[in-house]
Amino acid sequence: MKRTLGTCYYPEHWPEDIWEKDAARMVETGLTWVRIGEFAWGKIEPREGEFHWDWLDRAIDVLGRAGLKVVLGTPTATPPRWVVNKHPDMIAVDVDGKPRKFGSRRHYCFSHEGFSAESRRITEKVAQRYGKNPYVAAWQTDNEYGCHDTVISYSDAARLAFRDWLRNAFNDDIDALNTAWGNVFWSMDYADFDDIDLPNLTVTEPNPAHALAFRRFSSDQVVQFNREQVDIIRAHSDAPISHNYMGRITDFDHYKVGRDLEIATWDSYPLGFLEDRVGADAERQRKYARQGDPDFQAFHHDLYRAVGLGRWWVMEQQPGPVNWAPYNPAPLPGMVRLWTWEAFAHGAEAVCYFRWRQAPFAQEEMHTGMLRPDSADAPAIIEARQVRDELIDAPMVQPAQAPVALIFDYDADWAWTVQPHGAGLSYFGLVFEHYRALRRAGLSVDILPPDTRDFSGYAAVFAPGLMHMPDDLKAALNAADAQVVLGPRSAARDAHFSIPNPLPPAFPDLDVTVTLVESLRPDSPMTLSGGGAFAGYREELSGEAETVMTLTDGRAAVKRAGHVSYVGGWGDDAALERIVAMICQAAGVPVMDLPDGLRTRATATERFWFNHTDSEITFGGRTIPAAGVLREAS
Amino acid sequence: MKRTLGTCYYPEHWPEDIWEKDAARMVETGLTWVRIGEFAWGKIEPREGEFHWDWLDRAIDVLGRAGLKVVLGTPTATPPRWVVNKHPDMIAVDVDGKPRKFGSRRHYCFSHEGFSAESRRITEKVAQRYGKNPYVAAWQTDNEYGCHDTVISYSDAARLAFRDWLRNAFNDDIDALNTAWGNVFWSMDYADFDDIDLPNLTVTEPNPAHALAFRRFSSDQVVQFNREQVDIIRAHSDAPISHNYMGRITDFDHYKVGRDLEIATWDSYPLGFLEDRVGADAERQRKYARQGDPDFQAFHHDLYRAVGLGRWWVMEQQPGPVNWAPYNPAPLPGMVRLWTWEAFAHGAEAVCYFRWRQAPFAQEEMHTGMLRPDSADAPAIIEARQVRDELIDAPMVQPAQAPVALIFDYDADWAWTVQPHGAGLSYFGLVFEHYRALRRAGLSVDILPPDTRDFSGYAAVFAPGLMHMPDDLKAALNAADAQVVLGPRSAARDAHFSIPNPLPPAFPDLDVTVTLVESLRPDSPMTLSGGGAFAGYREELSGEAETVMTLTDGRAAVKRAGHVSYVGGWGDDAALERIVAMICQAAGVPVMDLPDGLRTRATATERFWFNHTDSEITFGGRTIPAAGVLREAS
Amino acid sequence: MKRTLGTCYYPEHWPEDIWEKDAARMVETGLTWVRIGEFAWGKIEPREGEFHWDWLDRAIDVLGRAGLKVVLGTPTATPPRWVVNKHPDMIAVDVDGKPRKFGSRRHYCFSHEGFSAESRRITEKVAQRYGKNPYVAAWQTDNEYGCHDTVISYSDAARLAFRDWLRNAFNDDIDALNTAWGNVFWSMDYADFDDIDLPNLTVTEPNPAHALAFRRFSSDQVVQFNREQVDIIRAHSDAPISHNYMGRITDFDHYKVGRDLEIATWDSYPLGFLEDRVGADAERQRKYARQGDPDFQAFHHDLYRAVGLGRWWVMEQQPGPVNWAPYNPAPLPGMVRLWTWEAFAHGAEAVCYFRWRQAPFAQEEMHTGMLRPDSADAPAIIEARQVRDELIDAPMVQPAQAPVALIFDYDADWAWTVQPHGAGLSYFGLVFEHYRALRRAGLSVDILPPDTRDFSGYAAVFAPGLMHMPDDLKAALNAADAQVVLGPRSAARDAHFSIPNPLPPAFPDLDVTVTLVESLRPDSPMTLSGGGAFAGYREELSGEAETVMTLTDGRAAVKRAGHVSYVGGWGDDAALERIVAMICQAAGVPVMDLPDGLRTRATATERFWFNHTDSEITFGGRTIPAAGVLREAS
Repeated sequence: MKRTLGTCYYPEHWPEDIWEKDAARMVETGLTWVRIGEFAWGKIEPREGEFHWDWLDRAIDVLGRAGLKVVLGTPTATPPRWVVNKHPDMIAVDVDGKPRKFGSRRHYCFSHEGFSAESRRITEKVAQRYGKNPYVAAWQTDNEYGCHDTVISYSDAARLAFRDWLRNAFNDDIDALNTAWGNVFWSMDYADFDDIDLPNLTVTEPNPAHALAFRRFSSDQVVQFNREQVDIIRAHSDAPISHNYMGRITDFDHYKVGRDLEIATWDSYPLGFLEDRVGADAERQRKYARQGDPDFQAFHHDLYRAVGLGRWWVMEQQPGPVNWAPYNPAPLPGMVRLWTWEAFAHGAEAVCYFRWRQAPFAQEEMHTGMLRPDSADAPAIIEARQVRDELIDAPMVQPAQAPVALIFDYDADWAWTVQPHGAGLSYFGLVFEHYRALRRAGLSVDILPPDTRDFSGYAAVFAPGLMHMPDDLKAALNAADAQVVLGPRSAARDAHFSIPNPLPPAFPDLDVTVTLVESLRPDSPMTLSGGGAFAGYREELSGEAETVMTLTDGRAAVKRAGHVSYVGGWGDDAALERIVAMICQAAGVPVMDLPDGLRTRATATERFWFNHTDSEITFGGRTIPAAGVLREAS
Repeated sequence: MKRTLGTCYYPEHWPEDIWEKDAARMVETGLTWVRIGEFAWGKIEPREGEFHWDWLDRAIDVLGRAGLKVVLGTPTATPPRWVVNKHPDMIAVDVDGKPRKFGSRRHYCFSHEGFSAESRRITEKVAQRYGKNPYVAAWQTDNEYGCHDTVISYSDAARLAFRDWLRNAFNDDIDALNTAWGNVFWSMDYADFDDIDLPNLTVTEPNPAHALAFRRFSSDQVVQFNREQVDIIRAHSDAPISHNYMGRITDFDHYKVGRDLEIATWDSYPLGFLEDRVGADAERQRKYARQGDPDFQAFHHDLYRAVGLGRWWVMEQQPGPVNWAPYNPAPLPGMVRLWTWEAFAHGAEAVCYFRWRQAPFAQEEMHTGMLRPDSADAPAIIEARQVRDELIDAPMVQPAQAPVALIFDYDADWAWTVQPHGAGLSYFGLVFEHYRALRRAGLSVDILPPDTRDFSGYAAVFAPGLMHMPDDLKAALNAADAQVVLGPRSAARDAHFSIPNPLPPAFPDLDVTVTLVESLRPDSPMTLSGGGAFAGYREELSGEAETVMTLTDGRAAVKRAGHVSYVGGWGDDAALERIVAMICQAAGVPVMDLPDGLRTRATATERFWFNHTDSEITFGGRTIPAAGVLREAS
Repeated sequence: MKRTLGTCYYPEHWPEDIWEKDAARMVETGLTWVRIGEFAWGKIEPREGEFHWDWLDRAIDVLGRAGLKVVLGTPTATPPRWVVNKHPDMIAVDVDGKPRKFGSRRHYCFSHEGFSAESRRITEKVAQRYGKNPYVAAWQTDNEYGCHDTVISYSDAARLAFRDWLRNAFNDDIDALNTAWGNVFWSMDYADFDDIDLPNLTVTEPNPAHALAFRRFSSDQVVQFNREQVDIIRAHSDAPISHNYMGRITDFDHYKVGRDLEIATWDSYPLGFLEDRVGADAERQRKYARQGDPDFQAFHHDLYRAVGLGRWWVMEQQPGPVNWAPYNPAPLPGMVRLWTWEAFAHGAEAVCYFRWRQAPFAQEEMHTGMLRPDSADAPAIIEARQVRDELIDAPMVQPAQAPVALIFDYDADWAWTVQPHGAGLSYFGLVFEHYRALRRAGLSVDILPPDTRDFSGYAAVFAPGLMHMPDDLKAALNAADAQVVLGPRSAARDAHFSIPNPLPPAFPDLDVTVTLVESLRPDSPMTLSGGGAFAGYREELSGEAETVMTLTDGRAAVKRAGHVSYVGGWGDDAALERIVAMICQAAGVPVMDLPDGLRTRATATERFWFNHTDSEITFGGRTIPAAGVLREAS
């Protein structure tokens, strides 16, 4: 598969007489792909049943004839006003019971049957018309499921669907649900599934089992919604189907959606993310304000490689300042090129810049593009041209299996969200800090879904915070020919959020028991002998397994038996560095000690070096300029 | 009365076949009391009118036969789902108008007549069945009135009841209400009591008289609700009746509830409170994260001794990490023992640990117990056994009248909440800082209700911030054979929240007038000559009374005539230390200068020393280990 | 016009037998004006159609006969309960959809036709009765439009009225609206004006054009409401009509309201504003806690001089601690006098103290007055008497045109609010920081409305942040015989919030193009060569105009052609000082370098010096005491 470039284009926003010129300029810029249509429902069907295909026919034709491949989106992320007039209760409802009204986008509840029917109907129409179109080379379902907190809806439709989902999950046995959830606790037993309400607005927190079930249900609704579109498109087209995910959205299980698709694509906004979603401290936000976090995009690249079963793109690459973060600076010159090559280094088949031309109106008028609103070159297109030239002699996409694997589990993320135990603790944060530690050690990393059972080829597998571990996962890890790292909080809950008995982690051949857990004030880390600390969260460990790291007061911090280690706390950077070094040594994987902001990544044939800082870095004899990329044969 | 231990047990959470073993183990641990039943409505009456008594009969029997005394709770804190289905509008409503739904606990509005009837009905059923049971040695009404902000409800039921309450309070005379509240101010006069709405969601703040009246009403609804249960239990049982209060809840008048009961019990969660409710600064929170605030529990002990008219317990003693604070660390080894002895030093008849065994499910699965979820010993039971052994030769509960008294008035707390005048100022905080100053001086303290009229035996009485002082209280204090300390803000309002004329404090024989009040930025304290400062709040004082302390600019800070002093500001720690010293000298009460974290308390026969720090302290020749207790004959 | 004093009085709050004494004391204090009636609807018409005029007749008579001139308010800011009972849906609705209930004031929606009719009816009644009364020397409509966030209401009435307003604005052409707003962006096109909802509760932000239109509509509703009252009063009275504005309220266009009136009055609460509205940092808040911000009141004085077309008052001057700010300290002795003289220096005809006597009840019982609640002198009356004495030989109100002008545009403030681009950025803040820089340079400033087209007499005109600049404004500034300073963000949007093409500022004879904009973290200012920095917001400038200031990396910061300069960023204090100096040098206007807290202001015949600090300041040979005023002949 060739490494390719692309862009996102909205022909409906521009006078038709400039389409041809735009298309020619895209081709000249070296773009292969052009995504269109995902917000155009109102233009396609301005009134119910009144279809205006002509403009879209012409747009596809103009783009295709210019030599571009079209990615066509189903337009369900933006139901027009008339759809809402027809189904007023399709509107999602927020946790406070407030409607999430028409006037922007994603204003639908996944559980509303009327809207689902509309979604299938418009998908059918679009697929029918363009399924065999030679220029339509790929599909996208909807856009950015979950963006703007839109997975979870507390609507009447969701309440009814949740009851059905529970009825199904518990085989119509309400006593089974009551037992599984421990509803006896505060007289919360239900006599019937129809007694069950959504877990919002309770006096104090709802039963965590209730809350987790609702999150699982909400995720399944997304999977189901997407699958309906996929089934329809498949009936009309042989082109691959993708969904375009937004970064740092974990409210639904991307793996499950991804398995119904050929390609995963995601939206990479490094500067916006740093301000909004990374969770970096103020000093780090200041330092990387014009570069983005050095690990955050890479983490998503590796995640979406897993979600896409190997095939993935960046569908929206930040080209300059965006409109939506608290602060919206311009990237350092060179960063657009760096971000593009970084995606390729992690195995992307395509990197598309969002968007072709900055819109002069509406919500995103402050979002830059490859072109300015007056069609002059914006900075991004200059760097895209550089990548175009560099791609000429670059190898194909050839990802190699990484030496270490890190399990990321959406269900665990919901569990931690439901019950963080300490303010600010999140599963995403825990896994991401492990990822950063592995990258600081110069390692390439594969992210694995929690239903992985074959770990062959990995020298080490990390599964921090994986709250529920089914027995066959424990067995597979126990049998793996790899160093396995568990904890904190791995296997801490059964399938319905109860504490198992025997106590966690109850891992085969590992005599470790977590006898007590505590969360810590951020100003009160517990130091480790030899350097580093546990911060935020700690567990008391007992058992016969060897203690291989201790707190300075002598208590066990990390225990180990054979190839399996259990870490009894949330390591800070220094602790994770030591743990990674210890595990890699045991696994025979060499590590580096990369300077802050320098990262490396290997493919089957190349090794890349990325300098995320604003100063030149020399490392191992190489010099990488500020915001620079170095590509070596590996 | 012997000093005793106990625990809270939920037989309904566990297989019946381990009850007997649990009971034996409780007895072996030296426990006398076991509280049960307060959340078991759903288990007792799973469907309306269908009563399942058998399990509870057997549980009481097992426990009682083992030698334990049962405290039986009415189960009204957790109305089952069917009760809510029957009375959908019994749900409380929050200040924003949102329903507080079923799914946790305390989801009822005290003003709902339908639910009140259900409460009386289930209380009658329970009292009838167990009123003469030989093992039921005490009762508990409901549980933790007010926990999770549940006293104040903005429901339709509350609106109707509030109107009736006002009609009654003003003898059906709406003009009297309009005049008392000053409704003329912004054309807020009402033509009829039915015009009066609840004081939420107003454009700017409501009339403070309106807001205060609603708080008084809300408190009275709790008193009434409790009294109904008490009357019913009394008709069937001779055992003493208690309510179990939660710490730092001031939304209803505990004294009024307490007078309908024999015993006050409260829930002592020192570490959770420090994170959540004490209001300590970050450094203090860090320092005492594993010990709790050194004065907060003691304050409540002394408060509940007053609420219980001398008879009080700790019903729920924190045993280890809890689930509900922002951070939930484990206590320092020794603290569970320390907390237990501290309660006994302040006169507790019993200290019960919450809970016997950690539940593996539902909202409190992260709340530790005396046993782990797998029934192994948790750290708390070890320290409980130590107390058991130490109690063998300990004296009976023998509280002695303290040399100094501090008045705490719930009504004043509501008044300050309605009108703090400066951000962050609270009556509870003001009184608590006085309490801390008295304790730092080594004094034992009695807390008194505001309707106390006999102050004999006290060398000094402090009444800071007591916003409304009826004339007979002023007269009683004026006549008292004690140093009396008023201010700031004492007697600042009449019964309906107006500023009196003549201006406050208008105290007999004390020529002091507060001519102006101001609130201060936290960064702008006003320093006192000789040390200390007024912080947050200050009053300009005039009058012929002697000025005994001044601001550094020479203006009066404290004035005094005879045995009465008026303090014109909110003293910081240093100022309060000086004021306490000055008053105690005048009163002839010797004071100490205790090191930070060391506290002492005298009973009739003993003097205790408590070291709340994590280091050994030597004071007055004694050495008290970290987290240690020293008991001396007094 | 003589400089006069006055007060605000509520005869309805006090026993009638003290009115006469109050009036005599007002006269003795040198007061000319007494404002009454603006909250008295309930006293005038306690039940629908039942009018009680007698008390008001007598009050006006007592005050007038004592020699006072009455300002009579229409009482519509406080509709009585019965009005709300009659029109339950007149209640405004907040952005979350919650009703803003009866119980304080301003609880009406400007768009409610039923309430508008009530407003006209009561205005007619009052005007009819007192239109020819010889003691009623001026009128006030309603009170403090917009206070407590009351301009914008998301009610049903507002929704209907907004649709009509849009229908009118777009000549009933929905396609014109769709095009102007760019609704094609996310399929937001409307088929009909009745499809348009209010721009709250959308999933992500609404279309900024939608949001801005709603703000314009909301402002127009205020203008219309006020005009209806004015028309009625005019039909009955020849006395001048005013409205009394609250400081730092920008939710409606004061200029438009002001043009229907003879006098603008405003409410000056320097200490409350500093805590609540200035936006000063903590150190500045601490330093000026007892004096108020040195520029904030002056800014409003100059603004209301423009709003009042030259005629303006302070209707409510803070006399001591208020009730409503987070912290409410007492002013430094001398400040009440300073504030009074400062208003006169800026051209006020009258300064009225709020209020005569502190009310002992209701929402403002903690708001001091000229008298204490017990009628004794409060500190303010002492300083008022000093001003009375000083006024004896003071000149008449004689404002002179200032050398520099600063344009302030309410519409631009809404635009920045709708789309700040960076957290914390506001148009008011930007203009106010320019104002402060001009004042630090010792300049008197005129504030101009954005429809000014004649700039003659000004040496320099500043128009920072004026988001939309119509062509004729550009032409007028281009033709002006003054230094003109634009940017940042001036002319950045067309009339409906789109980015114009050619790109901004597209100013005649100025070859500058803003090619990219970015917002900056507060910790990441971009330094300028020669001192100062751009903070928060910056623009990339291209074009042939001369670069007169650069970033330290060499890029253009300020460009200039002829008399027009464009500033490509938000200058910090040092940058603005340099820009002001540069422009004033080019304009031939001498500048000073005033010490912190010293300010000066010239009238036609006098120069005033105001020391806002708590220490004596010597400057240019003059010594001004702490909180002191120095008046020189100019």
